[in-house]
Amino acid sequence: MATAGTSLVFRQLFEKESSTYTYLLADKDTKEAVLIDPVVDTAERDAKLVSELGLKLVYVINTHCHADHITGTGKLKTLVPGCKSVISKASSAKADILLEEGQKVTFGKFSLEVRTTPGHTNGCVTYVLLDESIRMAFTGDTLLVRGCGRTDFQEGNPATLYDSVWGKIFTLPDDTLLFPAHDYKGQTMTTVGEEKRHNPRLTQTKEKFVEIMNNLGLAYPKQIDRAVPANMMCGLQD
Amino acid sequence: MATAGTSLVFRQLFEKESSTYTYLLADKDTKEAVLIDPVVDTAERDAKLVSELGLKLVYVINTHCHADHITGTGKLKTLVPGCKSVISKASSAKADILLEEGQKVTFGKFSLEVRTTPGHTNGCVTYVLLDESIRMAFTGDTLLVRGCGRTDFQEGNPATLYDSVWGKIFTLPDDTLLFPAHDYKGQTMTTVGEEKRHNPRLTQTKEKFVEIMNNLGLAYPKQIDRAVPANMMCGLQD
Repeated sequence: MATAGTSLVFRQLFEKESSTYTYLLADKDTKEAVLIDPVVDTAERDAKLVSELGLKLVYVINTHCHADHITGTGKLKTLVPGCKSVISKASSAKADILLEEGQKVTFGKFSLEVRTTPGHTNGCVTYVLLDESIRMAFTGDTLLVRGCGRTDFQEGNPATLYDSVWGKIFTLPDDTLLFPAHDYKGQTMTTVGEEKRHNPRLTQTKEKFVEIMNNLGLAYPKQIDRAVPANMMCGLQD
Repeated sequence: MATAGTSLVFRQLFEKESSTYTYLLADKDTKEAVLIDPVVDTAERDAKLVSELGLKLVYVINTHCHADHITGTGKLKTLVPGCKSVISKASSAKADILLEEGQKVTFGKFSLEVRTTPGHTNGCVTYVLLDESIRMAFTGDTLLVRGCGRTDFQEGNPATLYDSVWGKIFTLPDDTLLFPAHDYKGQTMTTVGEEKRHNPRLTQTKEKFVEIMNNLGLAYPKQIDRAVPANMMCGLQD
């Protein structure tokens, strides 16, 4: 989607087995593009779209080291030679570029600013698009539409996640569009204002939130034992 | 999504059993809203979102009489009293408002213009948003991302569909954002320019297109025998 008053190209893409959203962002003028959170199973679809739109993929970015799917990062590096892998330093995962708080990922005239938002994992970050005419952020598994990521595996910590959301995401303007890494109910996006009012977990006190998160009783993630080791290596187990 | 330079609220929603996209559009200022192609199974989700966003649902609109799911129109009329059902006159389906070529559906300062695009069914229409700062159209099953609707049941006719796409959709500006009623590969949208260049079927000659469509060999739609009679009555079989 190219939005009015900006030359941003924006596409949301879905991988149905893991209910993962992948995002393609590009500068329509310079053609420089980034992919956020691609999945290995749909990497070829994403590479084809980049090609059909005449874009130049410069960065393949992850919000964190995923436990529910194998990232498409490594596969995209082979499909689209020249692009670089990007993840947070705190994830301890391998990548060409390791990011810390406040650093930027630039494509054409746009930049994504890194906000560290640990809690689902230690290395979770939220990428905030810096643009005058459209406010958007990519929250990974930190904040989902009317939900949030699990805190019962990897380095999950509910109190940390609560502080991340309130300190780094809910401090953005209310009309900021939020795009999560997953959704299981067919919802595609939300806003800061909506989640501050209607998120059933994060509108609770921190103590109540911790109690809720510690008692979800969820099943062990199906793909975690193969996904995490692979994702620590950009999706490739050499 | 509220886009820059406009007060349009826009949300794409997905129903996974039938891979259907439902669209919520609203005027942020007047709060008047429309839903396009809701599904009965997700009608409660959609009504809840309308309520949480503080919107007033005025119209529930269908692009055509669907064969693959039961519309949420009737259920939404009971969940959100006061809204009106809308479909094309040529669909022969029951609704509060029956539309013909060139008519408009207005919500706040926005309007959707009706373009009749038969071929998948006789009553298929494309709704074109009339707005200075963002060009978008809702193509139903007439045009899908890199595909198109089937023409082998109901009143399907591939030559008619081809003429509809080339005469009524591909004549829109290349940067018009197109939103389909379905996608099966996790794609959420496309543009006129992209489909004119990359649609594997519609970039063919009309003769070749008809041949392709007459030889798809697809299975009989699972829900058609209960969906079509229900949808002729706004999703309700009274």
